[in-house]
Amino acid sequence: MTAVVLLLSGPNLNLLGDRQPEIYGTASLEDHVAAARAVAETHDLELEHLQSNHEADLVDAVQGARGRCAAIIVNAGAITHYGRSLQDALSTFEGPIIELHLSNPAGREEWRHPSVIAPVATAVIAGLGGHGYPMAVAAVARLLA
Amino acid sequence: MTAVVLLLSGPNLNLLGDRQPEIYGTASLEDHVAAARAVAETHDLELEHLQSNHEADLVDAVQGARGRCAAIIVNAGAITHYGRSLQDALSTFEGPIIELHLSNPAGREEWRHPSVIAPVATAVIAGLGGHGYPMAVAAVARLLA
Amino acid sequence: MTAVVLLLSGPNLNLLGDRQPEIYGTASLEDHVAAARAVAETHDLELEHLQSNHEADLVDAVQGARGRCAAIIVNAGAITHYGRSLQDALSTFEGPIIELHLSNPAGREEWRHPSVIAPVATAVIAGLGGHGYPMAVAAVARLLA
Amino acid sequence: MTAVVLLLSGPNLNLLGDRQPEIYGTASLEDHVAAARAVAETHDLELEHLQSNHEADLVDAVQGARGRCAAIIVNAGAITHYGRSLQDALSTFEGPIIELHLSNPAGREEWRHPSVIAPVATAVIAGLGGHGYPMAVAAVARLLA
Amino acid sequence: MTAVVLLLSGPNLNLLGDRQPEIYGTASLEDHVAAARAVAETHDLELEHLQSNHEADLVDAVQGARGRCAAIIVNAGAITHYGRSLQDALSTFEGPIIELHLSNPAGREEWRHPSVIAPVATAVIAGLGGHGYPMAVAAVARLLA
Amino acid sequence: MTAVVLLLSGPNLNLLGDRQPEIYGTASLEDHVAAARAVAETHDLELEHLQSNHEADLVDAVQGARGRCAAIIVNAGAITHYGRSLQDALSTFEGPIIELHLSNPAGREEWRHPSVIAPVATAVIAGLGGHGYPMAVAAVARLLA
Amino acid sequence: MTAVVLLLSGPNLNLLGDRQPEIYGTASLEDHVAAARAVAETHDLELEHLQSNHEADLVDAVQGARGRCAAIIVNAGAITHYGRSLQDALSTFEGPIIELHLSNPAGREEWRHPSVIAPVATAVIAGLGGHGYPMAVAAVARLLA
Amino acid sequence: MTAVVLLLSGPNLNLLGDRQPEIYGTASLEDHVAAARAVAETHDLELEHLQSNHEADLVDAVQGARGRCAAIIVNAGAITHYGRSLQDALSTFEGPIIELHLSNPAGREEWRHPSVIAPVATAVIAGLGGHGYPMAVAAVARLLA
Amino acid sequence: MTAVVLLLSGPNLNLLGDRQPEIYGTASLEDHVAAARAVAETHDLELEHLQSNHEADLVDAVQGARGRCAAIIVNAGAITHYGRSLQDALSTFEGPIIELHLSNPAGREEWRHPSVIAPVATAVIAGLGGHGYPMAVAAVARLLA
Amino acid sequence: MTAVVLLLSGPNLNLLGDRQPEIYGTASLEDHVAAARAVAETHDLELEHLQSNHEADLVDAVQGARGRCAAIIVNAGAITHYGRSLQDALSTFEGPIIELHLSNPAGREEWRHPSVIAPVATAVIAGLGGHGYPMAVAAVARLLA
Amino acid sequence: MTAVVLLLSGPNLNLLGDRQPEIYGTASLEDHVAAARAVAETHDLELEHLQSNHEADLVDAVQGARGRCAAIIVNAGAITHYGRSLQDALSTFEGPIIELHLSNPAGREEWRHPSVIAPVATAVIAGLGGHGYPMAVAAVARLLA
Amino acid sequence: MTAVVLLLSGPNLNLLGDRQPEIYGTASLEDHVAAARAVAETHDLELEHLQSNHEADLVDAVQGARGRCAAIIVNAGAITHYGRSLQDALSTFEGPIIELHLSNPAGREEWRHPSVIAPVATAVIAGLGGHGYPMAVAAVARLLA
Repeated sequence: MTAVVLLLSGPNLNLLGDRQPEIYGTASLEDHVAAARAVAETHDLELEHLQSNHEADLVDAVQGARGRCAAIIVNAGAITHYGRSLQDALSTFEGPIIELHLSNPAGREEWRHPSVIAPVATAVIAGLGGHGYPMAVAAVARLLA
Repeated sequence: MTAVVLLLSGPNLNLLGDRQPEIYGTASLEDHVAAARAVAETHDLELEHLQSNHEADLVDAVQGARGRCAAIIVNAGAITHYGRSLQDALSTFEGPIIELHLSNPAGREEWRHPSVIAPVATAVIAGLGGHGYPMAVAAVARLLA
Repeated sequence: MTAVVLLLSGPNLNLLGDRQPEIYGTASLEDHVAAARAVAETHDLELEHLQSNHEADLVDAVQGARGRCAAIIVNAGAITHYGRSLQDALSTFEGPIIELHLSNPAGREEWRHPSVIAPVATAVIAGLGGHGYPMAVAAVARLLA
Repeated sequence: MTAVVLLLSGPNLNLLGDRQPEIYGTASLEDHVAAARAVAETHDLELEHLQSNHEADLVDAVQGARGRCAAIIVNAGAITHYGRSLQDALSTFEGPIIELHLSNPAGREEWRHPSVIAPVATAVIAGLGGHGYPMAVAAVARLLA
Repeated sequence: MTAVVLLLSGPNLNLLGDRQPEIYGTASLEDHVAAARAVAETHDLELEHLQSNHEADLVDAVQGARGRCAAIIVNAGAITHYGRSLQDALSTFEGPIIELHLSNPAGREEWRHPSVIAPVATAVIAGLGGHGYPMAVAAVARLLA
Repeated sequence: MTAVVLLLSGPNLNLLGDRQPEIYGTASLEDHVAAARAVAETHDLELEHLQSNHEADLVDAVQGARGRCAAIIVNAGAITHYGRSLQDALSTFEGPIIELHLSNPAGREEWRHPSVIAPVATAVIAGLGGHGYPMAVAAVARLLA
Repeated sequence: MTAVVLLLSGPNLNLLGDRQPEIYGTASLEDHVAAARAVAETHDLELEHLQSNHEADLVDAVQGARGRCAAIIVNAGAITHYGRSLQDALSTFEGPIIELHLSNPAGREEWRHPSVIAPVATAVIAGLGGHGYPMAVAAVARLLA
Repeated sequence: MTAVVLLLSGPNLNLLGDRQPEIYGTASLEDHVAAARAVAETHDLELEHLQSNHEADLVDAVQGARGRCAAIIVNAGAITHYGRSLQDALSTFEGPIIELHLSNPAGREEWRHPSVIAPVATAVIAGLGGHGYPMAVAAVARLLA
Repeated sequence: MTAVVLLLSGPNLNLLGDRQPEIYGTASLEDHVAAARAVAETHDLELEHLQSNHEADLVDAVQGARGRCAAIIVNAGAITHYGRSLQDALSTFEGPIIELHLSNPAGREEWRHPSVIAPVATAVIAGLGGHGYPMAVAAVARLLA
Repeated sequence: MTAVVLLLSGPNLNLLGDRQPEIYGTASLEDHVAAARAVAETHDLELEHLQSNHEADLVDAVQGARGRCAAIIVNAGAITHYGRSLQDALSTFEGPIIELHLSNPAGREEWRHPSVIAPVATAVIAGLGGHGYPMAVAAVARLLA
Repeated sequence: MTAVVLLLSGPNLNLLGDRQPEIYGTASLEDHVAAARAVAETHDLELEHLQSNHEADLVDAVQGARGRCAAIIVNAGAITHYGRSLQDALSTFEGPIIELHLSNPAGREEWRHPSVIAPVATAVIAGLGGHGYPMAVAAVARLLA
Repeated sequence: MTAVVLLLSGPNLNLLGDRQPEIYGTASLEDHVAAARAVAETHDLELEHLQSNHEADLVDAVQGARGRCAAIIVNAGAITHYGRSLQDALSTFEGPIIELHLSNPAGREEWRHPSVIAPVATAVIAGLGGHGYPMAVAAVARLLA
């Protein structure tokens, strides 16, 4: 049976390609999801995607993934830095969790340095731009293998 | 011409496979380098590797890579957290720099959270265990493409 | 006329009984609400319950309770630690407010120690596990008497 | 063509006139919006207003204002102090942004001092009570002139 | 055999009813102990009480309760905030420990916020005024059941 | 009788138009005062202005305004961030006090974020550039009305 | 009737004259008390004195002074810096409280700078050496006059 | 020959009797100086007084007192908390220095707690209201005896 | 004449052998004192021992040791971290002071890291378990030799 | 035409030679200025000097040097550590600025470590005693060459 | 078979006897090693010694001791306070580790207080001067017994 | 006899002229040393130079300079900010020590502000670019004169 991987995109990621292209690049979120999905298929993984500006929607999605999805890839946007509810939800998930960022937060403003996702994440992939999406899927494939 | 990628391993990484296998796994550093090299070859990249417990050896190697290597992958071990000389050396390097960790430092002791490498790194890959080495090479291949 | 008590449950509390039973116990949120309601009835109190992962739903509920409910019991989950909007809403409520927690946050991670609810709460009941729900209702009954 | 100005009101501002009148005055939010709209009309500006207790609704509104509205006036309530998603959204807006407060946060509780909106705002108007609404519109008119 | 519950009262609690009645109420410590004892009897519990201004007397009492008492209820007064010896003593007690406060310290001076008792307490009941005493006994009865 | 409004300008504001025009604009302090005075006259207010690099001159002026002026508008320049004597003087003034800044300090260096004027100011207007002067007068007119 | 003034001396003050005479001088505590008593008599005040190394003894004495003594002079020694129980006790006293120190703590080690007595003291006299005792009594006489 | 004592009064002390009488009392600065002078004469001391809102005037006065005055009494007002130049000047004075405050800063706002005068002062007298002036002179007389 | 060494044991050390044996071992305090005394005798030293849960008893004992004992060995238990009165008392002792701990506080909770004894101690011996007692005596013997 | 160099001396530097000679040496400020002037002449530079205890006089002087002087050498004394107005003034100066200190502040009290001048200074020369004055001029000559 | 104990000496310890004898005494490192070796022999232990100014040499030595030596005694000098690589190496060692210091760092500069060695050390011996070396060996002998 | 001055260059200074020329200029380290040596010869001083990326090499050099060299000039690069071993070594040197920097660290990243060299340095020269080298030698010549 095909394993399902949940990809979560937090606030403002729907603006990708449009917002601050010098930091985030010109590809749209749909482009990134498509690139991720393409890699997923080569590993016989099904990729589910949800973008929301509501932290609670992400919490709901994580709760819905428990016992159903094999892994979660999460780029929580600014919620990365204060989303304690999302952290709590993720901490209840049994499978691997990849924290994903297009840019490298460590090279940006001070408030982007601490992540509340990181302590409950299995792994972090940051700063690879659009390459991060397919690579996160590849990483999941390796971890699930 | 084949591009050269420099892989740097900091203090105590020569103990991999032996030291705290519950955190770092049972593969040796040689195993990891071999896995990385295998991927490098598929991308027509040459992988150079240096492990040292001396920060200055890593500084020397970074200096030697300037104008000669296409990218640097660095797992600086504990030096990640206080190696300001290594940070300065890396900041003079023109190509992409991948900060690599086997474990996810954000889930460990407080002092392992801040990284002096991160501000000068292009990207960070952490927590993927041994999978991090081949994936870091794959990331470099994508960034150089 | 029967006084109404509003019981609010924040993010992830819908997972009770399932999530980290070693910390939170095996009873479900429904079990806890039922136990609370049973006590409420003995005191001629009507217990209203709302669980939501959205902070704003809790804010809405508090606003709706103003001038209509006699007391609020709130277990805000992770929102306890950053929900300044909920704090502001609660500070406009005229009746007693009980901050409720199943576990004792002071014995857990550092970030669970400060509560933004506490400064506007009348009282705090924490660490009694499932017993906290009926006892919070009993406390409300005493305060309203 | 009439330029559109978006006025955003965050959590609990719907209680204005009712909540802590000694701090916020006795006028309702509708009163304030009406006063602002009156000034807008004298400057041939159209005033759009949204109040929500959900940070994400404010984020959505800011995203919808990009390329369509000429300016944003935002009184984010308690979200002022932790709404990093709203900050990110506002930072993508091209026009002037006025951060508005009825009271002067600097004279209130410590936690109300830092604003995550301020670093991405063009200007701040605080402490003028109900006068702040029409004056913020007048300020926008001047900035757009 | 009747289980014994030790109730400890720290410095200045002997002034209850007299000291700052607007914060602590007008009932005396004896009144509170009597109310607690009444509830204890309904649960077939024997309530022992000690008030002392000496931290060491409280330490001695905790040591004497080891292996003899079923639970401890402790309102340590100001010692709550610096009594590391009492913390150490309590940490050696096998049964449930209830930290009790008449007022809600979180709503008072900054220095009353951290509690050194909390990390070793099973539960916290605060802000219920005189109702806290009988309710703490009821809580103990539930925990011991 | 015409009410008098005191406008105070702190250190280096006499350089306006000349110093860092990319931050402060090209208008001179005289230009700003003239614009403010023009608005004052429309509200039948008399505008007095003093610029000094001496904190004590500003203190003297505030003392002289007690019981004589109806309001104070103060752009204290760098003294905003350490002028405790000016703060004390302003705290003795009975009328409204507007803290005025050309730029938005929250978007500049860290040390410009805290203001010792703000806690004793009625209102803050910042980041409107030269528009701030006439608007501050208009705000005063509204507050005095 | 002669008013009673309670003079309290904390830990190690019984060593005065012997301990670190370069800081505390060569007079004994008895000498200081005698000098204080001499001044007290000239003002028709009765001076009671207690020295103890136990914080609780000082707490007991303060409790016993309530409603009986007209003023308290307290040199709490090292307890000045952590005696929260003594602070609580003093805060219940109705009359003037003078915090007294032989040396000036601000010129000594960092940990001697904050005083938990000061927030509840009417006045502080420090650094006058032995002159502090008679002057504190004289100050009390003035305050009671 | 009569020894000269310099009494310095910092910013806003010229408002005494008028500013915040609930904190500072109703006596004017002249009243306080007169009371101090009366005591000085009984000790054959000459009292010189200077009030200024300029820190530098106080610095000048301290410099002028070197080798000429026997002691300095200084109530520096708000400069107490940031006047490093005054601190440096005082540190060059050979005689005793009394830091004087009408109120007890430890019981007021946080920023009034640290004093830059205290580390170079011989003694501190605070919180005695107007009694502080004559008592500071009496203290000087004792120290000079 | 036989030199006397004072061994002080702070709060809860009377529980040794019983409390947390995985940290403190199974030997009783009496066992440790006996082991220390045996070594003392081989060095012709007399060992006096006092255990108390009262900080003031330890202070009294230190005061009594001045001019009579040759050295002090002190395991102050939790008082190590806040016992400023004991610190002051020890600072008046002329001979060597050994701070002793069974466990190594640096490897335990954060609050056990700072020691107020250490700055006035000659030496520190920690983490040797029961071996620490005889070794501390041996250390004293060497220091006194 | 001879370039003009402005040398500024802050508070208490007029006491040089007299104040704390063990730190600042025995030469007077006039001696230092003469030594600096002698070097200036050899480089065909004209040295202007101003000493003031008023920060604002230094600000005025910096403003007067804009467009007229080639460089500024500033030993601001204690103002170095809090003179934000002077910092702002210096930041508007186009030529090189040398921050000069006789002693090395890094080896003195904590509060002398941070400098608000340093961020806007071109260079810092500290700890050379009287040699600093001629060397600062020589440095200016080199920078202007 | 004789167990081997590794004694490590960090930077500048080769200067012992010469550097700051008022702190470190007049014995040379060789003297200390000889004294330690003498005790080792009485316990049938072989003492290996390495001094290096390179942290990496110490790391290499610790790695070489794994599985070969029975215990490590380490006086890391200044590396004690920042040598995270040495900390990591030591954490992989199976036997007891004694952190040794000649002086008591707690009584010296602030930066010498935290030790990165302490959290991974079994025990700490500090402040015994030259006696520390033989006593550390004696401690090892006891721990290995 | 010609006095010897030791010039030390820390990590990455061998890249001078190549690395970040906008900060450090285009001259090579050899150029700077040559300029320094030229000045040294005019003062009859012999200049020894060592560059190393190893902190320990710098420590060794400082140790070797004790009793042989007259002064040390040290530009420790990034080691300036964490090289506690170098600090300790320098603190044992009897002659003057000049801390030298090409740029002014106070105007760069936060982590470059504190210097561990400064507390043990006689003097600091920073921000003069290449001029710093000859001027540091000239400063040494003056200090040795």
